[in-house]
Amino acid sequence: MTTPPSLLSLTIHSAIHNLSRISDLSFLPDHVVLDLFLETLRAGKLNERVLKLFVATGKDEVLSLIEAFNIQQIVTPVLPTILKMSQLNIMDSEVDIVVGALHSDLTSFMNEWKPIFSQYHLIIVKDPELKEDLIIPDGFDLDVYTQQDIDRIVGASNSIKFSGYSCRYFGYLMSRKKYIISIDDDCVPAKDDKGLLVEFVAQHISNLSTPATPFFFNTLYDPFRKGADFVRGYPFSLRSGVACSLSCGLWLNLADYDAPTQALKPSLRNTRYVDAVLTIPAGAMLPVSGINIAFDREVVGPALCPALRLAGEGKFRWETMEDIWCGLCVKVTCDHLKLGVKSGLPYVWRNERGSAVESLKKEWEGVKLMEEVVPFFQTLRLPEAAVTAEACFLEIAKAVKEKLGRSNQMFARAADAMVEWVEIWKNAGSGPLPVDN
Amino acid sequence: MTTPPSLLSLTIHSAIHNLSRISDLSFLPDHVVLDLFLETLRAGKLNERVLKLFVATGKDEVLSLIEAFNIQQIVTPVLPTILKMSQLNIMDSEVDIVVGALHSDLTSFMNEWKPIFSQYHLIIVKDPELKEDLIIPDGFDLDVYTQQDIDRIVGASNSIKFSGYSCRYFGYLMSRKKYIISIDDDCVPAKDDKGLLVEFVAQHISNLSTPATPFFFNTLYDPFRKGADFVRGYPFSLRSGVACSLSCGLWLNLADYDAPTQALKPSLRNTRYVDAVLTIPAGAMLPVSGINIAFDREVVGPALCPALRLAGEGKFRWETMEDIWCGLCVKVTCDHLKLGVKSGLPYVWRNERGSAVESLKKEWEGVKLMEEVVPFFQTLRLPEAAVTAEACFLEIAKAVKEKLGRSNQMFARAADAMVEWVEIWKNAGSGPLPVDN
Repeated sequence: MTTPPSLLSLTIHSAIHNLSRISDLSFLPDHVVLDLFLETLRAGKLNERVLKLFVATGKDEVLSLIEAFNIQQIVTPVLPTILKMSQLNIMDSEVDIVVGALHSDLTSFMNEWKPIFSQYHLIIVKDPELKEDLIIPDGFDLDVYTQQDIDRIVGASNSIKFSGYSCRYFGYLMSRKKYIISIDDDCVPAKDDKGLLVEFVAQHISNLSTPATPFFFNTLYDPFRKGADFVRGYPFSLRSGVACSLSCGLWLNLADYDAPTQALKPSLRNTRYVDAVLTIPAGAMLPVSGINIAFDREVVGPALCPALRLAGEGKFRWETMEDIWCGLCVKVTCDHLKLGVKSGLPYVWRNERGSAVESLKKEWEGVKLMEEVVPFFQTLRLPEAAVTAEACFLEIAKAVKEKLGRSNQMFARAADAMVEWVEIWKNAGSGPLPVDN
Repeated sequence: MTTPPSLLSLTIHSAIHNLSRISDLSFLPDHVVLDLFLETLRAGKLNERVLKLFVATGKDEVLSLIEAFNIQQIVTPVLPTILKMSQLNIMDSEVDIVVGALHSDLTSFMNEWKPIFSQYHLIIVKDPELKEDLIIPDGFDLDVYTQQDIDRIVGASNSIKFSGYSCRYFGYLMSRKKYIISIDDDCVPAKDDKGLLVEFVAQHISNLSTPATPFFFNTLYDPFRKGADFVRGYPFSLRSGVACSLSCGLWLNLADYDAPTQALKPSLRNTRYVDAVLTIPAGAMLPVSGINIAFDREVVGPALCPALRLAGEGKFRWETMEDIWCGLCVKVTCDHLKLGVKSGLPYVWRNERGSAVESLKKEWEGVKLMEEVVPFFQTLRLPEAAVTAEACFLEIAKAVKEKLGRSNQMFARAADAMVEWVEIWKNAGSGPLPVDN
């Protein structure tokens, strides 16, 4: 049984539809003004004129509400949280999907992704160490880059090698789009917990284009997601959030474990679909896996480069550390610049490859390095003068050289690569693309 | 088609079953020792004698593996990660479930929870402002406390009031168990995404009794959960984690939003079941809701008290801030003591109550306070000499008095309450329970 509407609620309802004809609300009792204000907000009828009308009442509760919701006097209708989602109409043409090709035959990979990939521009970079020609099916809008292009555009670099997983970074350099999504060629589209195909690109772009909340943790995860909001106790002044620069997706089936974990638990598969995206709090470090990420190239592009190359680096993900290093650089940069990093959705389905035990025989260095690398990044503070990703990245390189470089030549080389990358980015990563000769 | 087993793999398989008869492995080639070691680990056959056997080989890879997995020379079989779950046999008798009764008729609440509650000891504290007698069905092992008990045990306190939601804290004081689970009386058991009843107590206790990982974020969430592990790049030295002291559960249906959010989105319901538990990184603050939490009473009990009472505090959750304040105190304490705080599972189903618009008319202070409270806790650092929760809590009280107390009497009163609570906890919160007169 529902209560019939009160005369007051009917009056308020009617008033909302006649706001344009009302010029004074101050004669109304406080609680009626409050109800009317809330109903106006809910109905999306708050515009600058109406806001002024409410401000003019001088009622404390209404003024508090306006302050609490951080409502600014602008012309468009204002709603906290909800509106931000609808403001984000990202064009497909603002996205590049980058694939580092470590396998020559991309037929099944591309065909599995066709429903998604066919809507976007692709950049495929062939691993320079791959001998065979690439096999790529028709029906895609793509540019393929090879060793020849690398030589032509970057020239012979002393410290940066684009072989193996690092070839993708050449694609980052060749993109001119705002957003880059990067995916390994051993992944196929995943299904969510309801059996539906994951909205891979849309989810990454939603992560990047809605605000991040690194300065206070929201226990219901992403407050900008449909059906969620900020929980009680979340300061209103922090609810507008900050721009998000990096979105880290996850993996079903074969997760991104290291070689010892894989070797020890060869049958371990990730079957848990966690339906969440969250902002990694400022100051907290995380291992960013390069398997499935997206980022704002215009903002943090210069901070993603293949700097840390292991002596025994190989063609399996667990034989590399370049992405983990890169992720720590980006996280420190984002924390410093008050930008956000998110982790969670979208998932990709990752197929099995390689023998972890074989990898263990040749590669231990990556696992050991982290013991030194993580405390370094956890305690690193950048000077206030660094206000761009380039500047932050150069400051990080300087600190790497000073604090890590002495103990291990690998770090000294990484620092050199970072400095060189910023130079390369300046010359080749912006402006018109160099013309093919 | 599967490859037939090699002679080598058969030999290794056989060797594992005969480890007790082997006294030297050093004559074997490096890669065979490594394979054998991994197989031994997988088979759970590593004990102290076998470990010594492998250490004696002096093989680099094996020694690295032992170091990386942080394998200690103890007598029980050693496996990284997995074993820790099985070590955690918590007795039901180590758990108290505390309910603050804000409603007199608990019949349907208790009956809904019967399958779970009937296995544990319950402490029910009647809100001193509740006039009617409590109605509690039979079939439970419980102690009920009322105003009389509060007067008898605590006496007349100047700064601590146990009315409303704060009555539960008297239950924390009366418990002598290691773990306390606290639940609001407007919640019923939730079902998971597969339609199964949530393992409410088991999940909280699992959160508390498995390690937390506050010093590096694991992108696959809780690495100690079945089917998960630490991802590539996670430093091995941090994989043993730290003890977890607070487990914050979540809410389906009516989430814990504040009054403005509820008023603005009256139809907003939480329907998303996120199948995850995660450690909140050290240094990051979160809004802890008291609706559904569990904690290690022995370790952080003294830091949970009803210190911050709003002038217009009411009987709806969004009219209180005592739990948010309390959670910030516990988080700062845990960060300082290198203890963990987790958030996520288990969910409870929360029923609707009250009118947010009515609450808005009387209560704005809580929302405004957070603007001052959060930056205070974010920048608070405790002296090294504080090595217990009591000591940390007293240091926090001191800082509250000094830095917040001057601007607002409410904070000064909170500081007084915190100091008084530590005294009360010393007298009534430990040792044998005071005898009823």
